[in-house]
Amino acid sequence: MADVGIVKSESFVFATKPDRLKLDSGQFFGPITVAYETYGRLSRAKDNVVLLLHALSGDHHAAGRYTPADRKPGWWDSFVGPGKGLDTDKYFVICSNFLGGCMGTTGPSSINPQTNQPYALTFPSITISDMVRVQKALIDHLGISHLRAVIGGSLGGMQALEWTLLYPEIARSAIVIASTSCLSAQAIAFDAVGRNAIMSDPAWNKGNYYGTKGPSRGLAIARMVGHITYLSSASMRRKFGRALRDRTDQAQIFDDEFEVESYLSHQGQSFVERFDANSYLYITKAADYYNISERFGSLSNAFRKTLAKFLVLSFTSDWLFPPFQSQEIVKALMSNDKQVTYCNIQTDYGHDAFLLETETLARLVRGFLDHV
Amino acid sequence: MADVGIVKSESFVFATKPDRLKLDSGQFFGPITVAYETYGRLSRAKDNVVLLLHALSGDHHAAGRYTPADRKPGWWDSFVGPGKGLDTDKYFVICSNFLGGCMGTTGPSSINPQTNQPYALTFPSITISDMVRVQKALIDHLGISHLRAVIGGSLGGMQALEWTLLYPEIARSAIVIASTSCLSAQAIAFDAVGRNAIMSDPAWNKGNYYGTKGPSRGLAIARMVGHITYLSSASMRRKFGRALRDRTDQAQIFDDEFEVESYLSHQGQSFVERFDANSYLYITKAADYYNISERFGSLSNAFRKTLAKFLVLSFTSDWLFPPFQSQEIVKALMSNDKQVTYCNIQTDYGHDAFLLETETLARLVRGFLDHV
Repeated sequence: MADVGIVKSESFVFATKPDRLKLDSGQFFGPITVAYETYGRLSRAKDNVVLLLHALSGDHHAAGRYTPADRKPGWWDSFVGPGKGLDTDKYFVICSNFLGGCMGTTGPSSINPQTNQPYALTFPSITISDMVRVQKALIDHLGISHLRAVIGGSLGGMQALEWTLLYPEIARSAIVIASTSCLSAQAIAFDAVGRNAIMSDPAWNKGNYYGTKGPSRGLAIARMVGHITYLSSASMRRKFGRALRDRTDQAQIFDDEFEVESYLSHQGQSFVERFDANSYLYITKAADYYNISERFGSLSNAFRKTLAKFLVLSFTSDWLFPPFQSQEIVKALMSNDKQVTYCNIQTDYGHDAFLLETETLARLVRGFLDHV
Repeated sequence: MADVGIVKSESFVFATKPDRLKLDSGQFFGPITVAYETYGRLSRAKDNVVLLLHALSGDHHAAGRYTPADRKPGWWDSFVGPGKGLDTDKYFVICSNFLGGCMGTTGPSSINPQTNQPYALTFPSITISDMVRVQKALIDHLGISHLRAVIGGSLGGMQALEWTLLYPEIARSAIVIASTSCLSAQAIAFDAVGRNAIMSDPAWNKGNYYGTKGPSRGLAIARMVGHITYLSSASMRRKFGRALRDRTDQAQIFDDEFEVESYLSHQGQSFVERFDANSYLYITKAADYYNISERFGSLSNAFRKTLAKFLVLSFTSDWLFPPFQSQEIVKALMSNDKQVTYCNIQTDYGHDAFLLETETLARLVRGFLDHV
């Protein structure tokens, strides 16, 4: 199957004075730079746009390579391209880095033009709705007034849901994968441990670490904790079992000895190289606070004005955002007589399945998009 | 129900030169101080002894108070006492702090008499079997040749299993609660994150932190991670939901805001005050390495020479040592025609249920002990 080929990261700036963006916190914020990529061609009628929303550790580089020599393509290259799940022969796919991120869109590591210093913790509190408001500004900028679909997994699915609530007249359909209308106490607890690990690292320095090594140890721990929650116990057993690592040198007493240990250490380490710790704090906090039913009185109330058709997908072994949370969304939609297709996909990949069950997802998503 | 009243911590020393203890690592180690407590009275025939094995964060102070003013009794006071689950009117209960611990039995924080410094990481690698060998030395010292039962939950259950393997002629019965014959890859991964958090704390200083504040931040993170795994998602939902904390002062942006966050922070903090970080490293490593079927070729092989009657108990919502791991033990025992009673107790308390489902456990344990 062909790929999207060489792509280019683009950006645009908005919310400059005096048109700053009003955030949920009440604060007016700007300027905001938005980093984004697009794949495929926008039709004349501008009616083939799919907005792809990324998850916690993703970014706007969803597919393709920046140069032919790039070792790795975008994070969902297996799913976005000609003939793939999001078929770029048919659809114009937009993916933007979300507000608060660290890959080009304004976030805590960005320079505050008023001080010429990184925002650090002077960056405002943000919500999932604020992220979506920024995406709305982007599609306005691109002259797009309707979205064939919004699609995302995990935190991306929460943004997709939010699109149907904030802009029901724009989002024609929503594909919500391994997501939830609010995090469980357990999921909040894991996020809290991650934040604690970052903030406990003396190198965090109350968020003022730019120009230094930063809280790389704390961030690595946060990522390790997160990574366990993305896999299922069964997939960890299959992948690692209790196998011990091959060693060439003399083992130190508490070195990583099990393969699962060295895998997690590697995940933690490589994350540190590409992610900003303060972004991790802001984004997980936005996720923890997200609570649709609290905002609208009930989940059923929330979806009353939604006009989108829904495809809701969960994974049987996902224990971070378990299937019952998707089913609550489906029930709320059905109680409003909304059009919704739901599938609980049998897999033991856990939460990560949204990046791994590519063929199953592609079949379901293609079929759904053909009919919206 | 009456309590055991005022108790006294006792200790004895063995493995002095030239009789040092041979550890699984091959190293000869000593001297070893063993801290222990006893409850109830030893019968003339010395046939009413129950050896109680504690879990990761427990110690030998299982029941009673040291002084009438003590705010808190021993960790299993609800279960050990006159007329309770372990009925001290009938049984002489012994509980010792295990090897590698930090509550009186020799561990990495103990002074190495050869250097007059704490062992720190010069403490030898230890195993669950080594812990049991030290307990055997204790009962020898007390002149006891048979145990009516060995009983423990979680890591304590692993020691109980090990007793039936190492000393089949001594352990007449074993009560194994919420335990396993080997940790899952996921459980090892959580332990690895905890160890990483400790060792990533600069205050850990390669284990040489005695006399300083020590890696309290890393140890707190390790405890927080652990604590999530001890609870079930359902019990966290019931206990905390998504409730926000009451606040009197102005919130800092990343302060603990959800009740579950402040609960975990508190758990982490109070653990730091009573536990040694190096002990945490050594003990979790011993747990991770424990693997009965690997040692014996199969679980069924392992139990061939066991003479004990078994009571195996698991909890439906325990996802750290899930029921299927208990069931594997039960199947292996049955394949050897051993006497085993198994109950998978319906509860949503998760792994922690072994400390909470006191009445159910008491009924099952009393009934079992009456017939061994």
